[in-house]
Amino acid sequence: MVLFDNPASGNCYKVRLLLAQLGLDYERRELDVVDRSNRKEVLGDLNPGLRVPTLVLDDGRALGESGAILWFFGEGTAYVPDDPFDRAKVLQWMFFEQYSHEPYVAVPRFWLTKGIEVDQETLAERQRVGYLALDGVEGHLADHEYLVGERYSIADIALYAYTHVADEGGFDLGRYPAIRAWLERVAAQPGHVPIDA
Amino acid sequence: MVLFDNPASGNCYKVRLLLAQLGLDYERRELDVVDRSNRKEVLGDLNPGLRVPTLVLDDGRALGESGAILWFFGEGTAYVPDDPFDRAKVLQWMFFEQYSHEPYVAVPRFWLTKGIEVDQETLAERQRVGYLALDGVEGHLADHEYLVGERYSIADIALYAYTHVADEGGFDLGRYPAIRAWLERVAAQPGHVPIDA
Repeated sequence: MVLFDNPASGNCYKVRLLLAQLGLDYERRELDVVDRSNRKEVLGDLNPGLRVPTLVLDDGRALGESGAILWFFGEGTAYVPDDPFDRAKVLQWMFFEQYSHEPYVAVPRFWLTKGIEVDQETLAERQRVGYLALDGVEGHLADHEYLVGERYSIADIALYAYTHVADEGGFDLGRYPAIRAWLERVAAQPGHVPIDA
Repeated sequence: MVLFDNPASGNCYKVRLLLAQLGLDYERRELDVVDRSNRKEVLGDLNPGLRVPTLVLDDGRALGESGAILWFFGEGTAYVPDDPFDRAKVLQWMFFEQYSHEPYVAVPRFWLTKGIEVDQETLAERQRVGYLALDGVEGHLADHEYLVGERYSIADIALYAYTHVADEGGFDLGRYPAIRAWLERVAAQPGHVPIDA
């Protein structure tokens, strides 16, 4: 298998983390996340979003979107629950992450770590909404060990990826004790690998 | 069941459309999508995203995110395929819609139909990216009757919701013959209901 990847991308890290925990081998092919001029050429036939991660199976079939790739490899393993409601809850958290969390928690990190120029007002507004997403996660984790069904799942992988490096986007996790304890539980899972592995 | 809903929301329409096609009854409870001041009070214990749609089952368990609700009701029916790769492809299109399509195709419609003040540059930039998303959908539908597995699924519901009213956001679908033909195929499905039903 080939993973079109970027080492700094949390979306790619989600896939790398699950594949590591499942013990699956693949080849990493790095794409630039700042200069995207070759995206159409490289990913045009593989992924309508032209984004990393994009995974190409050995038979040539391609899959885009981190959440879809996590589901493909996770379904039927311990990382996706069997109960229908819990399965939908896993997806709820994954859609929440892509819509309400990633654009506001990950994008400030991207700007700040890649030296992208952005005005302070735009950055502050992103962070304001990012904190609302983190509030939502904290509220749930205050009463729960993991996001769904009291066990580690791909929902935790999806939320962990950008939350554990939120400080690089200017976020202060000091106000989130439940999130910080959960980050430690996730990092202690068998087969865990760091984002820069 | 109770659906926290708004009649103009395409995300809510996705759920209403699938529930209609499945013949399931529920109570609609409308929330304002412009004045969101009561969201925390109404949805705080139900949905970390504080968004509509939020669905509450008869036993009190709640589910947020349109994609998760579609999956919950669609899994095990003709609206979600059985093949593992096709299932992941359905999710790929649904994540693509929420990340690359909805914020750029739905939001201009929201601004324009709700009379939200926005500067022309911001609107034009949203529309530019929205057209890239529509290009991705058109490219796929040029060779396919439906988004996944050549049959109607919740992926089609997810993409149909805001695409069929994209003109209200200032988009010209005239340049997308494959999308226009697909919109007609979707609207001709048994049990189809319009967004204002």
